[in-house]
Amino acid sequence: MSSMWGNNIKLSLFGESHGKGIGVVLDGLPSGFELDFDLINKQMQRRAPGKNDTSTPRKEKDAFEIISGLFHGKTTGTPLCCLIRNMDTRSEDYEKVHHIIRPGHADYTGTIKYKGFNDFRGGGHFSGRLTAPLVFAGSIAMQILIKREIYIGSHIMNIAGISDRPYDHTSLNKEVFQSLSRKEISTLDDHIGLKMKEAIIHAKSLKDSVGGIIETAILNTPAGLGDPFFDSVESKLSSMMFSIPAVKGIEFGSGFNLAQMKGSESNDAFMLSHGKVSTLTNHNGGILGGITNGMPIVFKTVIKPTPSIGKVQKSIDLTTMNETEIEISGRHDPCIVLRALPVMEAAASLVILDILSDD
Amino acid sequence: MSSMWGNNIKLSLFGESHGKGIGVVLDGLPSGFELDFDLINKQMQRRAPGKNDTSTPRKEKDAFEIISGLFHGKTTGTPLCCLIRNMDTRSEDYEKVHHIIRPGHADYTGTIKYKGFNDFRGGGHFSGRLTAPLVFAGSIAMQILIKREIYIGSHIMNIAGISDRPYDHTSLNKEVFQSLSRKEISTLDDHIGLKMKEAIIHAKSLKDSVGGIIETAILNTPAGLGDPFFDSVESKLSSMMFSIPAVKGIEFGSGFNLAQMKGSESNDAFMLSHGKVSTLTNHNGGILGGITNGMPIVFKTVIKPTPSIGKVQKSIDLTTMNETEIEISGRHDPCIVLRALPVMEAAASLVILDILSDD
Amino acid sequence: MSSMWGNNIKLSLFGESHGKGIGVVLDGLPSGFELDFDLINKQMQRRAPGKNDTSTPRKEKDAFEIISGLFHGKTTGTPLCCLIRNMDTRSEDYEKVHHIIRPGHADYTGTIKYKGFNDFRGGGHFSGRLTAPLVFAGSIAMQILIKREIYIGSHIMNIAGISDRPYDHTSLNKEVFQSLSRKEISTLDDHIGLKMKEAIIHAKSLKDSVGGIIETAILNTPAGLGDPFFDSVESKLSSMMFSIPAVKGIEFGSGFNLAQMKGSESNDAFMLSHGKVSTLTNHNGGILGGITNGMPIVFKTVIKPTPSIGKVQKSIDLTTMNETEIEISGRHDPCIVLRALPVMEAAASLVILDILSDD
Amino acid sequence: MSSMWGNNIKLSLFGESHGKGIGVVLDGLPSGFELDFDLINKQMQRRAPGKNDTSTPRKEKDAFEIISGLFHGKTTGTPLCCLIRNMDTRSEDYEKVHHIIRPGHADYTGTIKYKGFNDFRGGGHFSGRLTAPLVFAGSIAMQILIKREIYIGSHIMNIAGISDRPYDHTSLNKEVFQSLSRKEISTLDDHIGLKMKEAIIHAKSLKDSVGGIIETAILNTPAGLGDPFFDSVESKLSSMMFSIPAVKGIEFGSGFNLAQMKGSESNDAFMLSHGKVSTLTNHNGGILGGITNGMPIVFKTVIKPTPSIGKVQKSIDLTTMNETEIEISGRHDPCIVLRALPVMEAAASLVILDILSDD
Repeated sequence: MSSMWGNNIKLSLFGESHGKGIGVVLDGLPSGFELDFDLINKQMQRRAPGKNDTSTPRKEKDAFEIISGLFHGKTTGTPLCCLIRNMDTRSEDYEKVHHIIRPGHADYTGTIKYKGFNDFRGGGHFSGRLTAPLVFAGSIAMQILIKREIYIGSHIMNIAGISDRPYDHTSLNKEVFQSLSRKEISTLDDHIGLKMKEAIIHAKSLKDSVGGIIETAILNTPAGLGDPFFDSVESKLSSMMFSIPAVKGIEFGSGFNLAQMKGSESNDAFMLSHGKVSTLTNHNGGILGGITNGMPIVFKTVIKPTPSIGKVQKSIDLTTMNETEIEISGRHDPCIVLRALPVMEAAASLVILDILSDD
Repeated sequence: MSSMWGNNIKLSLFGESHGKGIGVVLDGLPSGFELDFDLINKQMQRRAPGKNDTSTPRKEKDAFEIISGLFHGKTTGTPLCCLIRNMDTRSEDYEKVHHIIRPGHADYTGTIKYKGFNDFRGGGHFSGRLTAPLVFAGSIAMQILIKREIYIGSHIMNIAGISDRPYDHTSLNKEVFQSLSRKEISTLDDHIGLKMKEAIIHAKSLKDSVGGIIETAILNTPAGLGDPFFDSVESKLSSMMFSIPAVKGIEFGSGFNLAQMKGSESNDAFMLSHGKVSTLTNHNGGILGGITNGMPIVFKTVIKPTPSIGKVQKSIDLTTMNETEIEISGRHDPCIVLRALPVMEAAASLVILDILSDD
Repeated sequence: MSSMWGNNIKLSLFGESHGKGIGVVLDGLPSGFELDFDLINKQMQRRAPGKNDTSTPRKEKDAFEIISGLFHGKTTGTPLCCLIRNMDTRSEDYEKVHHIIRPGHADYTGTIKYKGFNDFRGGGHFSGRLTAPLVFAGSIAMQILIKREIYIGSHIMNIAGISDRPYDHTSLNKEVFQSLSRKEISTLDDHIGLKMKEAIIHAKSLKDSVGGIIETAILNTPAGLGDPFFDSVESKLSSMMFSIPAVKGIEFGSGFNLAQMKGSESNDAFMLSHGKVSTLTNHNGGILGGITNGMPIVFKTVIKPTPSIGKVQKSIDLTTMNETEIEISGRHDPCIVLRALPVMEAAASLVILDILSDD
Repeated sequence: MSSMWGNNIKLSLFGESHGKGIGVVLDGLPSGFELDFDLINKQMQRRAPGKNDTSTPRKEKDAFEIISGLFHGKTTGTPLCCLIRNMDTRSEDYEKVHHIIRPGHADYTGTIKYKGFNDFRGGGHFSGRLTAPLVFAGSIAMQILIKREIYIGSHIMNIAGISDRPYDHTSLNKEVFQSLSRKEISTLDDHIGLKMKEAIIHAKSLKDSVGGIIETAILNTPAGLGDPFFDSVESKLSSMMFSIPAVKGIEFGSGFNLAQMKGSESNDAFMLSHGKVSTLTNHNGGILGGITNGMPIVFKTVIKPTPSIGKVQKSIDLTTMNETEIEISGRHDPCIVLRALPVMEAAASLVILDILSDD
């Protein structure tokens, strides 16, 4: 019932992992906007599977077809529909054992919610594959933001307990984001990135998986955006981020560390910077009272370890209602964090554009 | 623009801290429901200021008047409006210095957003005082949930770095919640509670403040609730929680700790419990694929240290656009966490009732 | 569940006819707007009952109190709550016979919907009295539109089959509206107005009632407003108008007469007027493809005869489920059309402001 | 911005008349529902162009492909996307003269709204062609309603001033609807239907067009549906109906005739029918106080004459901003009323299902 999202920029997401296709309708775009297909393709490729040994071998080119909303290469202002057909589906992996519910997945909850009629193959509508049209839509939002000099970028903050250094708000700029987006492992510290890759490959060798933390920053949002009481900027961003499969936590600015700080430490002192109101620190992550203050919006999201693992797990057979064991074959990502970076950027772009359009 | 919330149970929140009053319109309630004023009053008293030396001395009885929606003691099914008049306002504290923006507060962002016309006294519409009508509304939601044997309770997980033990999902029940709600410092471990109180009073003596973490659990929600893609249970809960002033992070189940776990650890193995599908652990916090799985929904929220502190802080005078200092007098809470517990319970009650009504 | 309305300008309406009070929360207003209380009072007085022998003798001054959202005489930009207490209630008229459902009223449908728990006195939440806060809110919207030189005015097109002449779009201006709003019977032709008044008084003498048609025009809306497919200007206006009790039909431009016209007649030929695109005729009522074309938006609404009449009517006693008769005493309007004019203007103002704010 | 609709049953409509295709995403459907493709195809064929000399010769088979939401022939409960590719497009008709705006069409308003970037060919997103996916979606809604024994049917009430007899609520049943849906000219009186056909063919011979009125009835809706204040059943139905291109008016029950009736005539007297509450007449069209009363919901909509006519018309050339003339070639319907019948039924089905799902 909630495949649709947005107030000003609206999304309608559809599709299942092993059905005919997936896609998105994107409405509320300005008319006459020329799409930058290089950016769209770049972001979709960062998300696409099958590139190397840190991700699933399923090969999906994620070639998309724009059905509507584009005329003479520019947006019409009416709904833009993008369709991505599924190509490399191996549904037989799923048909056999779908009544044995996979731990950590939506198999059980989906079965209950849809009374067993949902398309279970590859997670169906719950599949991370649905993030492909989200990245498509978000890349368009990102382009519109870039024209307004608003930049969004993510790096891997942590994988398997190995931590990159956090963003430094005093030196953050679009070049940092561009550099990160070109890396195989998008960390600020490349040495740390290598360690993370090793941890992923090690987990894979154990038929296991690892999770991680992504830090995302949004630069140059004007002060004054956001609509408390109920539509704080944090509310809008968190609601979207928790739509992304595997996200289990979000924190803004210093987040959970604020519990150990005093008010005299956590309050960001005001100062003038080039004649403009600024803050010395950014413990509040660019948001005060649910409204942007002009500082970088900074938040971290945690991605749980991929639930699909090759190890034997305890489960239940829903047809017999007996306890049993499951050993997932199929094709899986030992770590989804890398592929999740452009998803976070897309999701954040959509939220910020939606809020900006409100202004 | 977003003082209204909800799909099935709808809220409209209004008021300013030092204006005539605050209140809420609550729509979508079932008709013929008899209100339990004891529960409403109990929850509102837990939130009310002025009770002891851990909170602000501002005395507000938060006496409410029900204007509509109640007839012969029962809900009519049409909008229920509750009005709470402000009594103990000392606006002169604010009139003098309101052009010097308080760090950590919405003074600056509110001024930008509303072009200087917002009621700045005591934070105006951004004040934590707006949580009083939220607790009123949430207490009604809570009663309706209790009739369905769904129970919601919070305890203080952390204040000033001092940690209580977490909820144990195998022994959690409504009696635990009742016991917690009667304590001055609602911790599972009373010894820890005393240490937290000392830390608050110590911070107060330093004209400083402290923050903390609240853990909330929701028992007996049926499996199958939640509407992915965009209205996952985590999306709905987080969106509401980030509406509450001072919340800067939320995590479900094992949350940020998932970054350090392997999939074989974080996957909650399925098992049968009294013939029903259950899980051995609850790292996913009762939610899989954005949908409830019948296990307790468990989440933690972080509350930043109260931004109002007596210490001298660096600020800016918006009339002169000069850097200056500010020393906040007025009346403040050295720690808002204690008073935030019933707010979390109210907010969670509203979200769960809204989702349930969807079913 | 649907006492809330709007995308940009949001309303939350509450109250019952014989409860403590009625009111509205109005959100999304610009900040710093100085309210024109003369206009608000004038419009509310046009709607108020008890003025003369064409309306109910119930005396309600409709004195309102602004609870929030106004500071130093100007809007804050945060929710503005207005409360109107009920004063002249004679509930005993209703308590006695409420189980005998009144024909033409919502007594039966309300009882079914709310399982008998709704406040039946005077129609409760279904009462035309709820239009008082709507007029309050709409008068504020109207002021904001007037600053943008958008004018809205209604006249009585028909009462009891007696017709006024229609608006002439070539000579329509704000002075016409001002003149109409000062008349006791707001017709373009005063002679017709007198006949209508006679018809109302005659119906009253027969313990009966009459209905009528209102024509409303909106001047100077810019071309390009409206959001097809589903949010056409006609969709938004009609949805709001059918919220007003007793409205049973709406037509734009030439409306139902279009069924008898040829395309060559009904198509409004384009022409230049002072260098701007205009149309020779206005059969489409200022809207083409659901979007404003810059011509006056013109629509007619039909108001059914007041269902409360003194004549004996056939009914059912819901407690015994027997057929019976009812003779309504209480105080009633022999014709609601006169008092409905400012309601139409208020409702149209809210819709147009909501659409404009979208732009 | 408003191609999305619905609270419980949600639609997202996309496409342009001469682009790659048109379609709809339909969300909120129950899972496990087996689609009746015969009904879908029958309704789509009733709407399809090119069948005879009363409609446009454009041949579109309107073959649809279901992309998602259907698994093993049954609904999954997740979004169902339907894609219809455009086949018989002759865009060259439009490219040449699109800067000369067609009277009665959205050419001018669309150009203003979308700053000239909208796809103008064949009306683009404003085309009546967008009603094809609406009929697809509505046919699914209709099937679900039929399972609950709710029936919806339309007949032609009037074309070119020639009137059919109205529905008689005492004898209306599903067989009447079935009979009507099989007729080429769906009138209750076949003789009248022949006259209407003659009028259409005559108008065509004059290079002109005619409009008409459709009467729609909905049988067996339970009493108690609808959500006043703002979501009355009339509000929901009218909002949807005015989304359909060319609709310029709607009236419920006796509609505009109520202006000439007395309350003693227009009030529908209550009576018992087979022990259930019923009314003797149905002047209120099955709706009292915005809520269904269990009687047939009856409404009439007026469809303006097709704006595309071959006759010379006055217009403006937007590139030169000179007055000019236009003579529309292309392929057009001399009367759209016949093809609009299944559209009305589809639209009403979607609204009623959306309201019912709310219950």
